Amino acid sequence: MRQVSSTFDQGRSRVVIEGVEPEIDGGLFPIKRTPGETVAVEADVFGDGHEVISCALMFRREPDDQWCQAPMELIVNDRWRGAFVVTELGRYMYTLTAYVDPFKSWRRDLQKKVEVEQHTEVDLAAGAILVEAASQRAAGTEVKELREYAQMLRAKNLGLADKLKRALCSDLVGLLEKYPERRFATRYAKELVVVVERDKARFSSWYEIFPRSCAAEPGRHGSFTDCERCLPHIAAMGFDTLYLPPIHPIGRTQRRGKYIANDAGTDDPGSPWAIGAQEGGHKSIHPELGTLDDFKRLVRKANEYGIEVALDLAFQCSPDHPYVTQNPEWFRRRPDRTIQFAENPPKKYQDIYPFDFTTEGWQELWHELKSVVDFWIEQGIRIFRVDNPHTKPLPFWQWLITEVKKDHAETIFLAEAFTRPKVMYRLAKLGFSQSYTYFAWRNTKRELIQYFRELTKSEVREYFRPSLWPNTPDILTEYLQFGGRPAFMTRLVLAATLGANYGVYGPAFELCVDRAREPGSEEYLDSEKYQIQNWHSGNADSLKEFIARVNRIRRENPALQSNSGLSFHDIDNEQIICYSKQSGDRMNVVVVAVNLDPHHVQSGWLSLDLEALGFGGDASYQAHDQLTGARFLWQGTSNYIELDPRSCPAHIFRLRRRVRREQDFDYFS
Amino acid sequence: MRQVSSTFDQGRSRVVIEGVEPEIDGGLFPIKRTPGETVAVEADVFGDGHEVISCALMFRREPDDQWCQAPMELIVNDRWRGAFVVTELGRYMYTLTAYVDPFKSWRRDLQKKVEVEQHTEVDLAAGAILVEAASQRAAGTEVKELREYAQMLRAKNLGLADKLKRALCSDLVGLLEKYPERRFATRYAKELVVVVERDKARFSSWYEIFPRSCAAEPGRHGSFTDCERCLPHIAAMGFDTLYLPPIHPIGRTQRRGKYIANDAGTDDPGSPWAIGAQEGGHKSIHPELGTLDDFKRLVRKANEYGIEVALDLAFQCSPDHPYVTQNPEWFRRRPDRTIQFAENPPKKYQDIYPFDFTTEGWQELWHELKSVVDFWIEQGIRIFRVDNPHTKPLPFWQWLITEVKKDHAETIFLAEAFTRPKVMYRLAKLGFSQSYTYFAWRNTKRELIQYFRELTKSEVREYFRPSLWPNTPDILTEYLQFGGRPAFMTRLVLAATLGANYGVYGPAFELCVDRAREPGSEEYLDSEKYQIQNWHSGNADSLKEFIARVNRIRRENPALQSNSGLSFHDIDNEQIICYSKQSGDRMNVVVVAVNLDPHHVQSGWLSLDLEALGFGGDASYQAHDQLTGARFLWQGTSNYIELDPRSCPAHIFRLRRRVRREQDFDYFS
Repeated sequence: MRQVSSTFDQGRSRVVIEGVEPEIDGGLFPIKRTPGETVAVEADVFGDGHEVISCALMFRREPDDQWCQAPMELIVNDRWRGAFVVTELGRYMYTLTAYVDPFKSWRRDLQKKVEVEQHTEVDLAAGAILVEAASQRAAGTEVKELREYAQMLRAKNLGLADKLKRALCSDLVGLLEKYPERRFATRYAKELVVVVERDKARFSSWYEIFPRSCAAEPGRHGSFTDCERCLPHIAAMGFDTLYLPPIHPIGRTQRRGKYIANDAGTDDPGSPWAIGAQEGGHKSIHPELGTLDDFKRLVRKANEYGIEVALDLAFQCSPDHPYVTQNPEWFRRRPDRTIQFAENPPKKYQDIYPFDFTTEGWQELWHELKSVVDFWIEQGIRIFRVDNPHTKPLPFWQWLITEVKKDHAETIFLAEAFTRPKVMYRLAKLGFSQSYTYFAWRNTKRELIQYFRELTKSEVREYFRPSLWPNTPDILTEYLQFGGRPAFMTRLVLAATLGANYGVYGPAFELCVDRAREPGSEEYLDSEKYQIQNWHSGNADSLKEFIARVNRIRRENPALQSNSGLSFHDIDNEQIICYSKQSGDRMNVVVVAVNLDPHHVQSGWLSLDLEALGFGGDASYQAHDQLTGARFLWQGTSNYIELDPRSCPAHIFRLRRRVRREQDFDYFS
Repeated sequence: MRQVSSTFDQGRSRVVIEGVEPEIDGGLFPIKRTPGETVAVEADVFGDGHEVISCALMFRREPDDQWCQAPMELIVNDRWRGAFVVTELGRYMYTLTAYVDPFKSWRRDLQKKVEVEQHTEVDLAAGAILVEAASQRAAGTEVKELREYAQMLRAKNLGLADKLKRALCSDLVGLLEKYPERRFATRYAKELVVVVERDKARFSSWYEIFPRSCAAEPGRHGSFTDCERCLPHIAAMGFDTLYLPPIHPIGRTQRRGKYIANDAGTDDPGSPWAIGAQEGGHKSIHPELGTLDDFKRLVRKANEYGIEVALDLAFQCSPDHPYVTQNPEWFRRRPDRTIQFAENPPKKYQDIYPFDFTTEGWQELWHELKSVVDFWIEQGIRIFRVDNPHTKPLPFWQWLITEVKKDHAETIFLAEAFTRPKVMYRLAKLGFSQSYTYFAWRNTKRELIQYFRELTKSEVREYFRPSLWPNTPDILTEYLQFGGRPAFMTRLVLAATLGANYGVYGPAFELCVDRAREPGSEEYLDSEKYQIQNWHSGNADSLKEFIARVNRIRRENPALQSNSGLSFHDIDNEQIICYSKQSGDRMNVVVVAVNLDPHHVQSGWLSLDLEALGFGGDASYQAHDQLTGARFLWQGTSNYIELDPRSCPAHIFRLRRRVRREQDFDYFS
């Protein structure tokens, strides 16, 4: 027989599967989930003609090779949807299968014929053939069961009405669904990947602190032991992740002094990001902070407070780093044989030698850098905040994170890439669990809504987990510089409720430190990057209590522990932003209203999209402010809001449905 | 040396290429063009860090394996754009390459350093190394030239200023662009395909006629010879494609009579789509139409009038088709051994036997059907209108069209798939050159704008070439039934100007036949599908002259020969639609305004988007109505339109820029 060209071996697979979502860059990258989260898959599935199609979602956890199946249902316009829940860390695969279903087609047509009394013995005999064929695919007692059905459909001694009853009975449907005719099934050509990370990848509250600023006495270099003493305070505020800037020996050559001066004084401690000195490099500890044992004790103590320590991965060297002498081939050389320092003309960073990631010995270098991660994993660290990943090759990160996760799926990497959007997104796609965002610079209502719609409603939500930071040691925004205490409160509420992951650069935020080095600069006046600070003054204006309340609200409301249920609501005042979040089961509904103007009282009429929230159009319900404890009885969509920045610039309402029974002690549940 | 896992062999390729457009379904399907058209490609291209990236578009015509290159330019936000022009029929491939460009990076940094007088001999020496390396990649005299540049940059006897002048000169830029360092270039992983079809795939005017209705005497069965006599008339109206319903022997068993009656009278000619009788099947000619020689003469004569004959491909059989007895295995059998006729319960089509495309001998069947196409290609036919392709397997069409085009790239297939949108689009993706659309049922301004934006502004435009038919033998729309002559004029202008490809079911359209079989039906009262008509009455109301004018306007205005330059313009009357088309070179600008209300005069103020048309914001210009010859002097964006359906429901303006020189005889060009 002549062969139809090999491309068309599948010539008898008549069903098309296309437009699969989620599918990142044609399946090049995984989507991300945490245990218990759902993977909802949609696809366009269709064939020629008008026969009935069956479609199934297939999934498996690696390395199992046994596929599980979940049903896909037709929504509308050839679009199908199905879902499965992931439960374990690691990688899941999913794909689709679909086929023309002869039994379902036959059954549907028979029903239509019955309606107009067109059905004949021949139609039933046609069904018998399909049922007989299914019996050959069946196992156990069902073989016999199916054979008996087939015989009945053909039986001479049964009337047409009796046969019909059996032909259309739901038992037979169930059997045929179990043993369908899939000879010409189409299998979607790709197996798509889900990376399942632990809950903390989705929901975390970070606090950044420089251990060297933790000493009780002004001027002394703080240590891990000093840092331990701060733990109760940090825990009381409700943070669960303590991020430390690099803890390694700091270079002396070209060390930077206060105010980023090129010539450091002898007392200047230098930037922790100028990593490496005589005392060691990325696997060593800066002597003034303590020993490895001190560090491990800090990690242990923190755990006792429910706090996990996150380290900084800054893959760059000071000129004094041991790598520079031991592996000079890992650095780029200038024609005068000196090592090329970091520069972005006209700026020079002579205290930093970047690695040459594409050097001839790149594979050695990459493995060495992975061994740095392995080393800290051995010390109990599972969270890494990666410094400037966008200045190192993208394939390096893809390789590193993939390799690390093979043995430690519980590892979390946060990308500190303040760079162009596509680079940020690519880093997330290739493996970073969380990412810093442009949040710090999104201050107006329009900016915030536009940005968070992009992050939570577009495909981006499948792979990019935003981490919202109102400030960092590099970023003291204009908004914070000029808005006073209300600005800090506003930005805290926004960060902590718009983002399931957020963080603050600790004491400076808590104490509302707002003085920049110079006008137009976002650098802190006395930047901790280049000097030791002494924060522990008992400032009455501290946001400690407020932060603690906000973090408690986050813990108590599952809606705030994910970004998937975010919706924005209209309010007739450009200075007030209003949005809601609801939990996956829709049981927990939180509505947040924030006054973006730190200077004036603002008020307005809110138009809540009640239907989106699962509330009836003119229901009455309770808006219970979790910040103040105040309870408002609201009805319908339109309600009044007034926010005074001098007391509290935000409401974080939990909406409670009214329980309409007189005998209940409390009207609201 | 330890190996970094094989996935990362490309670890030193630091540039990412993603978001490539056009790329249909991840590269699974080609885009379509005609000779002279441009393939504009965009992509997101970026790497780590801030070095300069170079990117090139690569393309080749199959089967050449030599790639050509076109430059890609950065637009904004890591988005790049480049283009090439296709010139030959067949298949082109395109892909992208991008790399960190050390020379361009060095040059940019040097310029920045020069600005702040930071540049040193070391910087120039670094450049010398790059130039020296380029000399090793160079050929001919350029080897020496590059070496000399390298020497100069290092020369001890040249001053820094002299060296700088040479380092930054444009000659050197040119040389390095010719011999760039591409050692770690990223090559986009996919090679994407362009199918180039002839101009007619993009621009065609179809006329459908039943040859059997061409006889001069009422009641006689018309023949090809009668059809020949209609050619001058059809040519005078300006059509370039004459589409004939099936011309094969018509089955007698279960033949349908007038008004789709199940029992045909002895005189009933039957439906031409019930193909096959004793006299032959898909490769034979219905005896009453004439001989194969008669047919070939018709084709030849038509060509003399600039008209190409298109045949119908209806892959189905009457019960009398020779296949039924010769290859009974190609049909599905019912349990009573009869062959399964077409049915969609409760509807039965007992005059039609569908093929079983997934029969065991499917490959034989598919090849036989291809031989039908091959047969008519041998008789000189290159255009096929495919009947109901959506009721035959999609892989069959993909295979058939791909195979036919291997030897006959000039073949055009029009898909008559009035079905769900995704199936229609899939047929276009897999190879159909043109497709029927929902145009017939898009009557209001909003419907039209929404549909044509989807067709011309979304990715659909890359593979789906709409063919607009105001009527077909199956479709006499409500709009035509109740709108009288103005409705026919309106729909003609819309079809002929919104679509570069359009067609009419000929005499019935020209003569404004508007009587349906019954209320709520779109079937013609005396459907030519089941009876012979006699059209050639000299109806004074015939649209012949109007159609001729519209087709002439299409031929004279390149803007109307493509859909790529379509834009809609606002007008403050819901009954008037206004849009423009411009040619690729923007030299030809056509503005169309159509009154959609066939009953009343409608008027309104038009807001032309002049910038989109390449006209200055308050320029004065001439709107020259190609339908009436009237010339309006317009200025700016806002102009008045009034359309009386009883005279002419549309303007087709050609906009002419004013030539502002007194000495010109004519003020407009």
